[in-house]
Amino acid sequence: MLVVQKYGGSSLATTELVKHVATKITQTVQQGNQVVVVVSAMGDTTDDLIARSEDLVTNPVAREMDALLATGEMQSAALMAMTLSAQGTPARSFSGWQAGIRTDGEHGKARIQAVNPEALQAALAEGIVPVVTGFQGIGPDGAVTTLGRGGSDLTAIAIAAALDADRCEIYSDVAGVFTADPRVVPLAHPLAALSYDEMLELASQGAQVLQTQAVLYARGAGVAVHARSTFDDEPGTVVRDDVRSSDGPVTAVALDSHITKMALLGVPDTPGVAAYVCEQLASSGINIDLVFQAVSHEDERADIALTIADSDRDKARGILTQVLKDLGGRQLLVDSEVAKVSAVGAGVRNHPGVAATMFRALADAEINIQMISTSEIKIACIIHRHEAQQALNRIHAAFNLEDRD
Amino acid sequence: MLVVQKYGGSSLATTELVKHVATKITQTVQQGNQVVVVVSAMGDTTDDLIARSEDLVTNPVAREMDALLATGEMQSAALMAMTLSAQGTPARSFSGWQAGIRTDGEHGKARIQAVNPEALQAALAEGIVPVVTGFQGIGPDGAVTTLGRGGSDLTAIAIAAALDADRCEIYSDVAGVFTADPRVVPLAHPLAALSYDEMLELASQGAQVLQTQAVLYARGAGVAVHARSTFDDEPGTVVRDDVRSSDGPVTAVALDSHITKMALLGVPDTPGVAAYVCEQLASSGINIDLVFQAVSHEDERADIALTIADSDRDKARGILTQVLKDLGGRQLLVDSEVAKVSAVGAGVRNHPGVAATMFRALADAEINIQMISTSEIKIACIIHRHEAQQALNRIHAAFNLEDRD
Repeated sequence: MLVVQKYGGSSLATTELVKHVATKITQTVQQGNQVVVVVSAMGDTTDDLIARSEDLVTNPVAREMDALLATGEMQSAALMAMTLSAQGTPARSFSGWQAGIRTDGEHGKARIQAVNPEALQAALAEGIVPVVTGFQGIGPDGAVTTLGRGGSDLTAIAIAAALDADRCEIYSDVAGVFTADPRVVPLAHPLAALSYDEMLELASQGAQVLQTQAVLYARGAGVAVHARSTFDDEPGTVVRDDVRSSDGPVTAVALDSHITKMALLGVPDTPGVAAYVCEQLASSGINIDLVFQAVSHEDERADIALTIADSDRDKARGILTQVLKDLGGRQLLVDSEVAKVSAVGAGVRNHPGVAATMFRALADAEINIQMISTSEIKIACIIHRHEAQQALNRIHAAFNLEDRD
Repeated sequence: MLVVQKYGGSSLATTELVKHVATKITQTVQQGNQVVVVVSAMGDTTDDLIARSEDLVTNPVAREMDALLATGEMQSAALMAMTLSAQGTPARSFSGWQAGIRTDGEHGKARIQAVNPEALQAALAEGIVPVVTGFQGIGPDGAVTTLGRGGSDLTAIAIAAALDADRCEIYSDVAGVFTADPRVVPLAHPLAALSYDEMLELASQGAQVLQTQAVLYARGAGVAVHARSTFDDEPGTVVRDDVRSSDGPVTAVALDSHITKMALLGVPDTPGVAAYVCEQLASSGINIDLVFQAVSHEDERADIALTIADSDRDKARGILTQVLKDLGGRQLLVDSEVAKVSAVGAGVRNHPGVAATMFRALADAEINIQMISTSEIKIACIIHRHEAQQALNRIHAAFNLEDRD
């Protein structure tokens, strides 16, 4: 079997961990598999390199920041290859350019355009384990480019697709994808499988197991992704197409506490107002999650409410203050004491009763719903942040998620 | 003018130093020059990376050690390029492979085989300062290779040759090549110029300004090398062909205190004995400096004395103990309380009185000469280590080296 294994920075943070991971790889080889390894930078390396650049320059050139950060993964790959070799497992490190990973050249957030797998195939044919730097590739002009956050997952999935690998395993300090964050919902447990779409909804809802871009790439390439823990031998969670992961309509629930609600009160109820608000935020790079518009029939004025990430709050407040003025609105409300709870499942689209079950669970706990958003596979509610933990447990229970497996 | 400037690790050890060096480069550009910069790894980076590998593996694979160590210069180049850009001097980092530096692929001690300067020329044509990683290139199989000690000097000289640069400046914390080590000879002063051959003799005698391999490459390529200080604007020393650096026959004196004398007493006085001794040491990678053979006419036995680096002492003692046994010799003497003082100058070959002047200077100070070695441009004497400092000052004075300029 041809297996791609990706190990994140927290799995490589100490000498002991590097040796432990090398032993896992060696075992996989000894079981008769061909293995390609993808590594992130070790521990805090990337943050340390950023700090070194900040000591010198306030806004470093993106090309040079990429050249600098890419060295973290190069060090990981070289150290892992020499550790494997010392264990008697022939291994060879590959930088992004050596592994044939070609990107669109967008520094700091490059997209993989093609993987030329010849060099990796040649190593595999020699019985050598290629150890590839995650997070990087080479742009059209020959410059090193990094892929942005979560880029090492993407590297592993792209290589698995290019090599037509049998498995793509993403190792981290989490044992897979859970029915809910176990720190919030004690009865949460790992899922054996879920679909790409479910994973995408969960990723954007705050579950940090697999990065959104990586899941999108996996869905496009049809690569099944195994999310597993570096620290045990449990099977973890498989993310793949058309999975029927559960009997019920809901697969998992998610919580995002890092959001802020903003509301423009008393703006004109005319076409294009909501579009104007959204455009102003989008042109500053602010992602809007939920949008809700209500019309008051008394004075023909409307209220527009939306949610954004907490980190965009100050920027958004400045923009919306101006927008309120432009529109002749009455008031801008900013509320960071909110959270979003979501129920995600491929079965949501076919089960009209899902929304009712969720709202009933919140109502029984006397939790007020401020905003609602639905998609084919998700129902999300904005509630008060202090009630979020209780809400998530109630919803988890309402869909019998603790009873599975 | 097209100038190649190389900055060593001690010139880049702190944030302040990196900014200082960037300012020097910017000034050179503002004076109307085109500049190519070559950088070493910053401060202790290389030693830190070696320590990290040693934590994991005892004998790391040479290929992976190269991949690991090369990241130190990559970080330097990226940080320097972003610092230059922040100063308004457009700059771009180049790894060895990006700069077109091709080696023979010998990991850890690769030799530069060719430099394809197209990428650097393209950057220069755009008004961009290329910042190239020293110490590394790419082998025939696409692997990163390092050049060994002093490799960054070699990188700068090879690039200067490939670009047909007008100047090649090697910056360090030393103000050039001196008539003697100023820590030993207070009256020593920097030389304006000296020949490649003189520099080679001085480099092998312990002067650490330019590395031997780099000087050999410069001589072969006909590149004039300026050794200058990062910390002042003095002109430094030019190393070039056929220079008449001085009025007298001797240009500089050198001291090497890190040598050991070994003597095999009472070995047969037959042809091939000295060759056998040297072969045994050479096959273990031990360089012999001076060799001296004396024949005792009483018993037809010979004494063979030689000098080696202190660092080879224990290995050489083991080999020569066996050699003594093989040859039926009488005794092995090992003496580390020795030093070598040398007088170097292109004029030595044409001035028969040079040796006499040197021996007279030592005799007047009642310093005993244990061994003598001469070449066309050098006279070297082995003396007792405790007398070395006094000897060097005496010789320096005897050739009037303090009176120049």
